[in-house]
Amino acid sequence: MNAEMTTFDLETYIEARDFASLREEIRNWPAGDLAELMEPLSVEKEAVVFRLLPRGQAAQIFSYLSSERQQELLKALAHEEVVNILNAMSDDDRTEFLEELPAQVTQQLLNLLSPQERQLASQFLGYPENSVGRLMTPHFVRIKRHWTVAHALDHIRRYGMDSETMSMIYVIDENGRLVDDLRIRHLLLASPETPISDLMDDRFVALKASDDREVAVEEIKDADLPALPVTDSQGALIGIVTVDDILDVAEEEATEDIQKLGGSEALDEPYMEIAIPKMVRKRATWLVVLFLSEMLTATAMGRFEEEIARAVVLSIFVPLVISSGGNSGSQASTLIIRAMALGEVTLKDWWRVMRREILSGLLLGAILGTIGFIRITLWANLFHTYGEHWFLLAVTVGLSLVGIVLWGSLSGSMLPFFLRKAGLDPATSSAPFVATLVDVSGLVIYFTVAAIILRGTLL
Amino acid sequence: MNAEMTTFDLETYIEARDFASLREEIRNWPAGDLAELMEPLSVEKEAVVFRLLPRGQAAQIFSYLSSERQQELLKALAHEEVVNILNAMSDDDRTEFLEELPAQVTQQLLNLLSPQERQLASQFLGYPENSVGRLMTPHFVRIKRHWTVAHALDHIRRYGMDSETMSMIYVIDENGRLVDDLRIRHLLLASPETPISDLMDDRFVALKASDDREVAVEEIKDADLPALPVTDSQGALIGIVTVDDILDVAEEEATEDIQKLGGSEALDEPYMEIAIPKMVRKRATWLVVLFLSEMLTATAMGRFEEEIARAVVLSIFVPLVISSGGNSGSQASTLIIRAMALGEVTLKDWWRVMRREILSGLLLGAILGTIGFIRITLWANLFHTYGEHWFLLAVTVGLSLVGIVLWGSLSGSMLPFFLRKAGLDPATSSAPFVATLVDVSGLVIYFTVAAIILRGTLL
Repeated sequence: MNAEMTTFDLETYIEARDFASLREEIRNWPAGDLAELMEPLSVEKEAVVFRLLPRGQAAQIFSYLSSERQQELLKALAHEEVVNILNAMSDDDRTEFLEELPAQVTQQLLNLLSPQERQLASQFLGYPENSVGRLMTPHFVRIKRHWTVAHALDHIRRYGMDSETMSMIYVIDENGRLVDDLRIRHLLLASPETPISDLMDDRFVALKASDDREVAVEEIKDADLPALPVTDSQGALIGIVTVDDILDVAEEEATEDIQKLGGSEALDEPYMEIAIPKMVRKRATWLVVLFLSEMLTATAMGRFEEEIARAVVLSIFVPLVISSGGNSGSQASTLIIRAMALGEVTLKDWWRVMRREILSGLLLGAILGTIGFIRITLWANLFHTYGEHWFLLAVTVGLSLVGIVLWGSLSGSMLPFFLRKAGLDPATSSAPFVATLVDVSGLVIYFTVAAIILRGTLL
Repeated sequence: MNAEMTTFDLETYIEARDFASLREEIRNWPAGDLAELMEPLSVEKEAVVFRLLPRGQAAQIFSYLSSERQQELLKALAHEEVVNILNAMSDDDRTEFLEELPAQVTQQLLNLLSPQERQLASQFLGYPENSVGRLMTPHFVRIKRHWTVAHALDHIRRYGMDSETMSMIYVIDENGRLVDDLRIRHLLLASPETPISDLMDDRFVALKASDDREVAVEEIKDADLPALPVTDSQGALIGIVTVDDILDVAEEEATEDIQKLGGSEALDEPYMEIAIPKMVRKRATWLVVLFLSEMLTATAMGRFEEEIARAVVLSIFVPLVISSGGNSGSQASTLIIRAMALGEVTLKDWWRVMRREILSGLLLGAILGTIGFIRITLWANLFHTYGEHWFLLAVTVGLSLVGIVLWGSLSGSMLPFFLRKAGLDPATSSAPFVATLVDVSGLVIYFTVAAIILRGTLL
């Protein structure tokens, strides 16, 4: 502890946005001394200092304040200026410095805020984007285990009007820790004098505020409950997430996946509302990436320029052959990505998926290859197109199709596994992206098969 | 009424599956006479006759039966044999002959059945596939408007244990018609002696059993309620749909759309569980359709064989140019299909969408065209590929790209409108399907632009 530290020093650190030194200075001060030092600060600066404290110290200081100053501090925490100051932190600093607030502060704070303010609040509360913390509401009914059903119902009658749901009632201990969840039905079906503890089974599913919101979707589906409780890292109940919020989340997630699969960034806004320059930017990114990758086809085709010059008829089937690979690739990757999103397929299933896709790819390739072979045979005999070597050409196209469709199914189904393994979103292996990759390899397969079969005749 | 009609005649009609004549014979008989005539029939045949009756007559006959025979009849209605007999009807006959059952019969019947049996039951109840009727549960709490809150809570305590939700309580009149829905919170927050009618606002949202389940998803999102009531065509309350069932439906619908967008039929089963032959069949259908359409590219390329022979270099850019059209087409169609599924875009928006896509398409085309132009210019100067007319080639590729990307965006965005207008599912205009269509037109655009720009030099 630096004996020379003054209120003025605190102000200087804040104005310089030097959060590291500030935190270093204050982290070991006794709560009483620090509270005194903070007193003359403007309430916004006080809030910043408070927010930078380690969790334990913050809890002490908070309980040290008069309830009037607690209210002031809570309001200041949600103040835009405070949010802006805290936002000046780098992401690393934020993770390091912004510890979880004490549960009682979180609860009171969230109760104080309007839903819009809560959106903002989740930033300085430190909940990551797309986390459960940003989704939860602080309006729910909590009761104590030693109450009777009549007491609980009376409590609900008196304090429940703001609660987001009445379907679920939460039982907490003296420290605010969640100990059980009860369906309202159990209270309604029980006789009034029953103690709450008689209804409890001490089993419950709870989300952490830091969980990803996709976890919430899975959990609420599995639990089959109208709402799930949210706790902080200490198990203290700080909010609930209701199934209708989850419905919106599931829909948004599906929209994002669909848009990515369609070869675009997620728009994040309704199609009719997003400004055109913004939409073009989001769409252009992927189109350009695809275009640049697809340039490899020009390189590949360039390599086979001589073959094409000798047998122009080969070039006629290029779009047909490579698009079949692209189509089977998009199909396979779409199926796998959706199965992953639904939790039907996990990383460890890669080998089973691969076997399924080898078999499916061979079958699908055989079907398309046969059709291709028949088409060329028919046209050659009906219209005498494709010259004297039509039969070898038909064999080339047919065999290439088997190889290319197999390759498309295989790479389309495996790419999502690689992406997920690498920690990326599998949905970015959009159908068009797979199609592009398969286009290039498809060309190589086609011209290689042609070189082998047509050597000495057309080539 | 045919005086000669006997029980034996009824049996003969049923065995001959001649439902039209059977219904014609019985439709105007007085309930008493018909009930007598039905008495000697086996209970399964009695159920068939009963099911074929017009709604009013069925209600009369049902109330005419002793409660014991009512139970027998209800059980028989769910019997597999009865279902099989009724399934022998053509779809047209079914719509014509199977009128809605009287509400009291429906309610009692559904209450009698296990969830699995209810799945089956929805067939002979006449609810179409994917309708709300197949989704609803008959377990809910109904109360009367003249009761007090205490009476209602007491009723819930006694009869509520099977109810799917306690969040919503439904108020019905003497005829079983739904007159209001109440959140349980209103009962819990009111003092016990309050009459239910004091809590009512006589405003509620109800689904029809015949509504499509997608309607249920939309309505429950808008209503922001944990459950919605389901009525028959007369407004009688026959079931409820809860938000967690809806969550499953929304997810299934999204999966179907995603799989269709990926160029496959909807699998309708988890990827890891579906038998491979079945999966290959579902995937092959679309791949074959796409392959057959893509054959048009061979025809198109065939037309330009002479040009290619003269300027092989043109063929090098074919995959690059046409895939760009395909990518922009998939992108646009995916965005529009999802926006339609979410209700953000409706049929009447086609003109606004078209304007947006013309603008976006031109911008995206200009971006890709510029990159293509630069690529060819760079390679030509660095590696002296593409011969002496590289500049004209670069112009050809650049301009084609503008036209093709514009065309891709435009047709990709408009195809879903055409499909929906024609009463088809827009999601079947899958990304690969659009890509295939755009491939063919892309070739024509490319070679036409080439013919104009390269005339007298390369061509």
